Amino acid sequence: MQERSQGDGGEQRTDASGDQAEPEGDDAAVNPLIEELLGGKHRALARVITKIENRQPGYRDLVSQLHQHTGNATVIGVTGSPGSGKSTLVDKMAATYRDRGETVGVIAIDPSSPFTGGAVLGDRIRMGSNVGDMDVFFRSMSARGSLGGLSTATTDAVKALDAFGKDRIIIETVGAGQNEIDIVKTADTVMVLVPPGSGDDVQMLKAGILEIADVFVVNKADLEGANRTVQELREMLDYSDGGVPRTVGHHGPDAGFDGSGGEDHDDEEGWDPTIVETVADRGEGVEELLDVLEQHQAYLDNSGQRDAQRRARYAEEIRTLVREDVNELLVAEIDHQGGIDAFVQRVLDRETDPYAIADDVVGPIEDCVSERRE
Amino acid sequence: MQERSQGDGGEQRTDASGDQAEPEGDDAAVNPLIEELLGGKHRALARVITKIENRQPGYRDLVSQLHQHTGNATVIGVTGSPGSGKSTLVDKMAATYRDRGETVGVIAIDPSSPFTGGAVLGDRIRMGSNVGDMDVFFRSMSARGSLGGLSTATTDAVKALDAFGKDRIIIETVGAGQNEIDIVKTADTVMVLVPPGSGDDVQMLKAGILEIADVFVVNKADLEGANRTVQELREMLDYSDGGVPRTVGHHGPDAGFDGSGGEDHDDEEGWDPTIVETVADRGEGVEELLDVLEQHQAYLDNSGQRDAQRRARYAEEIRTLVREDVNELLVAEIDHQGGIDAFVQRVLDRETDPYAIADDVVGPIEDCVSERRE
Repeated sequence: MQERSQGDGGEQRTDASGDQAEPEGDDAAVNPLIEELLGGKHRALARVITKIENRQPGYRDLVSQLHQHTGNATVIGVTGSPGSGKSTLVDKMAATYRDRGETVGVIAIDPSSPFTGGAVLGDRIRMGSNVGDMDVFFRSMSARGSLGGLSTATTDAVKALDAFGKDRIIIETVGAGQNEIDIVKTADTVMVLVPPGSGDDVQMLKAGILEIADVFVVNKADLEGANRTVQELREMLDYSDGGVPRTVGHHGPDAGFDGSGGEDHDDEEGWDPTIVETVADRGEGVEELLDVLEQHQAYLDNSGQRDAQRRARYAEEIRTLVREDVNELLVAEIDHQGGIDAFVQRVLDRETDPYAIADDVVGPIEDCVSERRE
Repeated sequence: MQERSQGDGGEQRTDASGDQAEPEGDDAAVNPLIEELLGGKHRALARVITKIENRQPGYRDLVSQLHQHTGNATVIGVTGSPGSGKSTLVDKMAATYRDRGETVGVIAIDPSSPFTGGAVLGDRIRMGSNVGDMDVFFRSMSARGSLGGLSTATTDAVKALDAFGKDRIIIETVGAGQNEIDIVKTADTVMVLVPPGSGDDVQMLKAGILEIADVFVVNKADLEGANRTVQELREMLDYSDGGVPRTVGHHGPDAGFDGSGGEDHDDEEGWDPTIVETVADRGEGVEELLDVLEQHQAYLDNSGQRDAQRRARYAEEIRTLVREDVNELLVAEIDHQGGIDAFVQRVLDRETDPYAIADDVVGPIEDCVSERRE
């Protein structure tokens, strides 16, 4: 097994004991790694995530063993088009959480890159922050296998951070494509960054992002065009659910803010997406943003949405894993029967047809399962 | 079996023999229906597509039997945002193909509607055309099951039209969402309609549609803003591949047209997306559009792309059918083992975890398949 240097790039702390060699690639030896992770060793956390990301032998057992230690972290998904200032804002959020005494893990998702470089991200956070010793674990995840695999790997990596004991886990995407949206929407609270400027950006949001956002952030709120962007967002949200969206931050509560605070916001009608204005590079609006995120978390707990959300996500996780496993089985079965190219040639020659092939491939599996039940 | 009235709505001709009762729902009796379809009975064609759309018993055998009679039709996919004039243009295209002596089938896809109403579309075409007796078969397909199912059903319906002997098959979408794009891109030639006006529309194209378009059509080319839209499209295409996109139609060949005609256009560097201007409600530019579509077809044949395209699509069709069949098997297996909700509860209680469940569900299937091979 090769331990890639990127694997340790996110580490903020070096534990002497983390250097001890464990017999890697041996399934029976994964327990010590989990023990170290649960014991607070960042090096073990980094190794577990590397195994998860690269789908190395034994990763399934690792994730299985992590599961019982999960369920305590708050997961925040952050997406938005490039240029909206996501990385700067996430850095400030992480630092502010640390100031509040909470531990933070950040996973940056970049489906378009085969190799994002966790070390670079590690540098980014250190340079972008004035907090020297903060306990923030940063890690990038990129597309090694299928994009479906990246989504599963992200879910698994979140479990590692959760089991480790991180209070807040931020999933940050590099872009805002469909695959990134699919990953971010598995978070408890979804934040969408909108760059100030032309209305084009708000228009673009309509294609799938509007539905998943719990909180909209207009970052760089000091730039010209920010007011117009906030106004357009408010009109869009107003139109979509009939309520009056709140606007918070930067310039302080504005006319759209009802002043009711978080608890009252949590009513039977569900959560109304909130607009927050920030100027991340000056740290403005970040405290207010974190407060709004807390309000959304309180809403999830008080409304019963937390439980519904968890059930829906575990069901989806189970279905996805089962589907991925069976797809591997199918690829092997098609190869065993001669390979996809041979099937295609017979279809082109009109010797058979796709439905007949599906029957040939799946039929025996179905028979097998039926016989086993009898 | 219930024959929905919509099933016959697209029919343009009534055959006395088409009314004869066949023993429906009996797999052994599907041959007569295929025989009637191959014999040119539109009523049989409508019934076959209804069975395909509703996934009625026996539809798989029907499609299997159709396959050997397919491979002769040209399939054109038409997409674009609502308001771009797709339906009017498709009507004119169909009428013009008929004037050229070719038979036409149109499938209109509307994933958002549970019931589009084929009869309404049938009316649309009759009202929109001056050709009284034209041999154009119109049919809508809507989302009854999963969207994946709609894509498969569309592929199957195209086979029915192809086997029937339609020379040109047009797949028209109501909107331009991701699912509709996925369906349209299975066509041999993909046409994307762009409404004239603000640059927003051209910007929107960048999200997935640019890559699939062989031909861009700026319809309503007589409206203000059309020139600007054409210009923006040309700049975008120019930027994307370094070549000079051709512009054809309405105002005649313009400065961007190299005058080389279709044959020279077909070079080793592949097909450069062509921009065509039309005014569909006056029939302007439609002849030129059909000529460009022919040029693309010639390109597919001469470049070897046709063969590559077919192989890739059959491979995808096989994989999709196998996946859909196995997913049904998995749903049944999960139910057999107690149902997804019971699994989720055990995951919530930390008694087990999603990977362990995937092993429990897929493991026995895998063992079964391995044993069968020995």
